[in-house]
Amino acid sequence: MSTPHSIATEGTPLHPNLIRAALDRAVRIALRGHGGAEPNPMVGCVLLDPHGEQISEGFHRQCGGPHAEVEALRAAGDRARGATAVVTLEPCNHRGRTGPCSEALLASGIACVIYAVADPNPLAQGGAARLRDAGVRVLHVPHAGAAELALPFLTRMRCARPWITAKWAQSIDGAVALANGESQWLSGTRSRKMVHRERGRVDAILTGIGTVLEDDPQLTARGVSRARIAQRIVYDPDARTPLDAKVMTKDREHDDRPTTILVHAANERDSATDARCTALAARGARLVELGQRGLIAPAMQFLAKDGVATVLVEGGGGLLGRLLQEHLLDEAWVFVAPLLVADDVARRAARGHAPEALAAIPRARLLAVRQRGSDALLHYRWTPLDRKPSDAGSTGRSMSPRESP
Amino acid sequence: MSTPHSIATEGTPLHPNLIRAALDRAVRIALRGHGGAEPNPMVGCVLLDPHGEQISEGFHRQCGGPHAEVEALRAAGDRARGATAVVTLEPCNHRGRTGPCSEALLASGIACVIYAVADPNPLAQGGAARLRDAGVRVLHVPHAGAAELALPFLTRMRCARPWITAKWAQSIDGAVALANGESQWLSGTRSRKMVHRERGRVDAILTGIGTVLEDDPQLTARGVSRARIAQRIVYDPDARTPLDAKVMTKDREHDDRPTTILVHAANERDSATDARCTALAARGARLVELGQRGLIAPAMQFLAKDGVATVLVEGGGGLLGRLLQEHLLDEAWVFVAPLLVADDVARRAARGHAPEALAAIPRARLLAVRQRGSDALLHYRWTPLDRKPSDAGSTGRSMSPRESP
Repeated sequence: MSTPHSIATEGTPLHPNLIRAALDRAVRIALRGHGGAEPNPMVGCVLLDPHGEQISEGFHRQCGGPHAEVEALRAAGDRARGATAVVTLEPCNHRGRTGPCSEALLASGIACVIYAVADPNPLAQGGAARLRDAGVRVLHVPHAGAAELALPFLTRMRCARPWITAKWAQSIDGAVALANGESQWLSGTRSRKMVHRERGRVDAILTGIGTVLEDDPQLTARGVSRARIAQRIVYDPDARTPLDAKVMTKDREHDDRPTTILVHAANERDSATDARCTALAARGARLVELGQRGLIAPAMQFLAKDGVATVLVEGGGGLLGRLLQEHLLDEAWVFVAPLLVADDVARRAARGHAPEALAAIPRARLLAVRQRGSDALLHYRWTPLDRKPSDAGSTGRSMSPRESP
Repeated sequence: MSTPHSIATEGTPLHPNLIRAALDRAVRIALRGHGGAEPNPMVGCVLLDPHGEQISEGFHRQCGGPHAEVEALRAAGDRARGATAVVTLEPCNHRGRTGPCSEALLASGIACVIYAVADPNPLAQGGAARLRDAGVRVLHVPHAGAAELALPFLTRMRCARPWITAKWAQSIDGAVALANGESQWLSGTRSRKMVHRERGRVDAILTGIGTVLEDDPQLTARGVSRARIAQRIVYDPDARTPLDAKVMTKDREHDDRPTTILVHAANERDSATDARCTALAARGARLVELGQRGLIAPAMQFLAKDGVATVLVEGGGGLLGRLLQEHLLDEAWVFVAPLLVADDVARRAARGHAPEALAAIPRARLLAVRQRGSDALLHYRWTPLDRKPSDAGSTGRSMSPRESP
């Protein structure tokens, strides 16, 4: 694979460091679209003049709204003529709710387009070729941050399931609760606020029946501005969710969004479970069947078809262990509170495995570490990046359009 | 308490931000003395001209060598006249192996001295008063970094025991080894290198008999430059250390430094343990008695009198749980490898406690979080900072001189 340096210098007078800085910036602003853009990818775009000075920038703020390139072009106006557009994802070439970005770029008189990740979407791809055919210089410059930015979208395309993120708070030595179950206020105020903010940006919040029975959580985003209202999902194979659980409670926000209960497939349920399912459905719950022996993956694929692009997991060790086993855990935010519980029977974030060798355990990528008051915040991803970002399209299957209808 | 701002602006024309930046710098360079300075405190000094420009800097590199102030004055030469000395700890006022810093500062013609932490050492303190009496402007400007820098020294003064730091590598969910004991290569190359570097800077490395029996570690610093050669200590109440354990092995480095075994007091030993003690002593080990029922604190105080200022703990969960119980854990470096073991019976960093309430568990301060390859590195301290750094002296007891004889 060519280095970004050699690629970049072939077709543009801009220094590779300028291109990298522009892509860094484009990634940073793209993240502002989280919660608005999905199920579209988050995308950022920066326009540079021939000296490498930034003219304008834009990001994809809202599914159905203008794409990042269009935002940046609008902000630039006439100054876009002869400029270089640096964009995290290959410009689209199809007419969804907005026109193709390739055409918008051509109409603006852009001289050069630099993108970091090829669009794998068969309905949208071809933007680079279209621009090149029309005489625009087009460069593909791989960029690690842009690859991470696009990964949830690429994974959803490829696996036809939502992107699944877990968050939990734990002690330094990995306890998420004391042996007696106490876990309240394990993390600090800032960490809790961040969780509520994330609850307001995802399509669904998934928890387990153990957590429902023990903590009776509401799973709503409180005290923060919300980009969307998440549906609430309980992994509850035997349909043991109490009819009066808070997660079942309807408020005005959730009136038209029934709580989803993931239950055993009908052929694996006994009559008592069937009766509880009926009662839950009568109470307004939506029942979605798990795969055989409680497999979660089929239920996730069902939810993806139903429009769920992002799932936030806030469950106990059983649910997380299960997700790990099915390789369904994409990402985790771990808040580490500054104390040692030092109790072998305290509860842990994940359980149910008995690894015989460290080498057999999948390693995550540590994307970032941060300090939040006295909590540490660790950000991990398990889903591998493509080794060749440019090949992402060729491995795609189970595609759905970049813009959902 | 006055803010640094109001204090600083009263007696010097320098802007408080300049003073803070100089103290930041002084702390940073002081840390280079770690491994050389102890049992003295690590101290840094920056000289500023009347415009706030840095003239020179110095730190206490080696116990018995020049103090930080003297290093900075030497580097400044004549330019010290009329300058401001910014120093992390109150200049000493006694003649140890080097002359009093207060006199050196006076002789140099320094106009102003700013220090962050008062010297609690009764033999060394009084530097600020001596300078003030001689007409030098002297300001006490508290600074969080300088307070942390001085804390190990202040704690050793106050408690008459070494400063005790633990390090361990764990999975995200707090496993330090699999259920079968496998722990090798849990952390990355950079993390392991950092541990070896620390081994080369402390006076003693403490491990537990469980670790000796299971891993048979050497506990030597390998592949790094060493500031000092640590003695090896095993917490082994029943004297079960095998005579051929690697930790007992003498090499040229350790020829004159016997391995120390912490054993039950004589009145708590049975005859078999006595026999093992005799055999270990015959093999060259030094036996040091624990307090009643295996208390570690008395042994630590004995070691402090014997010149041990810093102890690095590399043990299992039993030893760390014990240290926690005795409030002997001052500091920890935790390397977090990017994987979830998800096994309830995996081994943990600390055990032996059964807390009933989170609020009852002492919280540490998170000093720093860092990324080292794919490992996260978390740096904690449990020992509280004085609420008023200026009062540190008044709570002092069990003092020993700033320079050990």
